[in-house]
Amino acid sequence: MPCRSAAAAAKAIRDMTVRGAPLIGQVAAWGLYFDLVQARSHRDWASRFKRAAQLLDRARPTARNLKARLDLLKERFGNSSKDIALKKQEMKQFLLEQEKEWEKITAALAEHGAALLPSGAQVITHCNTGRLATLGRGTAFAVIDEAYHQGKLRHAYACETRPYLQGMRLTMWELRQAKIPSTLITDSMAAYLMSKGGIHAVLTGADRVAANGDSANKIGTLSLAIAAKYYGIPFYIVAPKETIDLAIPDGSHIVIEERSSDEVVEVGGRLLAPKGIRAWHPAFDVTPHNLISGIVTEEGVWNPRA
Amino acid sequence: MPCRSAAAAAKAIRDMTVRGAPLIGQVAAWGLYFDLVQARSHRDWASRFKRAAQLLDRARPTARNLKARLDLLKERFGNSSKDIALKKQEMKQFLLEQEKEWEKITAALAEHGAALLPSGAQVITHCNTGRLATLGRGTAFAVIDEAYHQGKLRHAYACETRPYLQGMRLTMWELRQAKIPSTLITDSMAAYLMSKGGIHAVLTGADRVAANGDSANKIGTLSLAIAAKYYGIPFYIVAPKETIDLAIPDGSHIVIEERSSDEVVEVGGRLLAPKGIRAWHPAFDVTPHNLISGIVTEEGVWNPRA
Repeated sequence: MPCRSAAAAAKAIRDMTVRGAPLIGQVAAWGLYFDLVQARSHRDWASRFKRAAQLLDRARPTARNLKARLDLLKERFGNSSKDIALKKQEMKQFLLEQEKEWEKITAALAEHGAALLPSGAQVITHCNTGRLATLGRGTAFAVIDEAYHQGKLRHAYACETRPYLQGMRLTMWELRQAKIPSTLITDSMAAYLMSKGGIHAVLTGADRVAANGDSANKIGTLSLAIAAKYYGIPFYIVAPKETIDLAIPDGSHIVIEERSSDEVVEVGGRLLAPKGIRAWHPAFDVTPHNLISGIVTEEGVWNPRA
Repeated sequence: MPCRSAAAAAKAIRDMTVRGAPLIGQVAAWGLYFDLVQARSHRDWASRFKRAAQLLDRARPTARNLKARLDLLKERFGNSSKDIALKKQEMKQFLLEQEKEWEKITAALAEHGAALLPSGAQVITHCNTGRLATLGRGTAFAVIDEAYHQGKLRHAYACETRPYLQGMRLTMWELRQAKIPSTLITDSMAAYLMSKGGIHAVLTGADRVAANGDSANKIGTLSLAIAAKYYGIPFYIVAPKETIDLAIPDGSHIVIEERSSDEVVEVGGRLLAPKGIRAWHPAFDVTPHNLISGIVTEEGVWNPRA
């Protein structure tokens, strides 16, 4: 599906056609660009910028990256009085450079994260954090992939990640493409798997990290973090610095998007629940920093408990 | 589907056409009966008994009730030298009486369990434990139903219970039939729901309870118990005494049935995962007794931590 306007980008983000915090940031940026290339005057540029940014900002509230990317573009291209043709060219150039920049950022995440894992590591991950969800190599997935290539990863378990099944549909696909030994589990099996021993780490991405380290991520992450704590297994968040929102002191300030009940009761497009029943559907949860062993960024590992 | 032989009963149990520990015990008992009514001699009776009991016993290993019911029937009807016609009549009578007896047992579970809940209680339950899973009123479901009728239950949250979705398909149906205010959640949402406050108890059934209180129940129960402990929420097992297996000292002796990967990757009969990937599928997990606030039986509440 081509996505050549802010409205189309916002719809793709809202409808989960694209998902993954870093990726929706970039899709929003391109959506904004496609609206701006039609600008015929500075005034037109400014009004298109405002309208498009508002639309995109509202598409999904929890991911920090979307807002961060829009803010960055506003700072760079929002009010500049440069020649419009030049601005268009520079913005396009900037977005393409960003994609290269993300290869470097995610390579650094991979490096710092893999260093945390022991030889023969068996890990659990949640949701989808590879190239399908990000720019570059991914976040938690990049760490798993790097550890595998360093010869220190023995096995990766992917939680299926209800209700959208990103783990089952996307992560298992990425793991297989990368030839990493892997097994799918339901979200409900993770604690039991941990209880049997032999799991060395739980690794996930994040959608927004507060100043104290409290981290919003795909629903189910909190449950994994609590179980990891119970079994003394390190729980790591892998996220670019962009995900960290220093403007909010803690997780209570993170807006958690609630999506429709239909997305829970209809699995793979089919209603499986009795007609008329209602489901709660928070798309994310917040893991308090005291459950997080480390937040892996491109600059190194931050221990929010320290 | 009529189920008029031990083989048919065993198949219905294996294929999950009937499930729920107390119910499969009774279905097995009737399957055995239908094989025995064809017996023409004492020798024929004994050999039919042996063959049918073996077949049924192997149908699902984790639930205590299946074996307990077969052992009880063996003791009563296995080797008696009574007239065969009389034995047939007595066995049928006994099975019908058992169904009445279970109404009393589950009424007592309901009573003892409801007494544990505060006024205005909001609870979480897992899997399916009402009349579709048991004889009589159910186990955890009977407690919820009783508390609602006593006016002390405000809301019940049912975990969908992947991979089989018994919570979504069966428990939500039973809750709606009983007009109990209820909401479906994915298994992965329970910890986040607890973190928001206002949950007063987690209630589940059990498939087998060891002598020290370690309890096997539907996969996902352990995860709920760990989260409940983390948030200081009482976690109760509701199970008839029949479920308690005094012959095993602790949960490490409970055989956990592993079912096929297909039942995880095919949801509602449709393959949702990429072709060729593999899922782990333990059908149950074991919750250690130190995470259990009380085991509600028909005789009262046993605190395995005391």
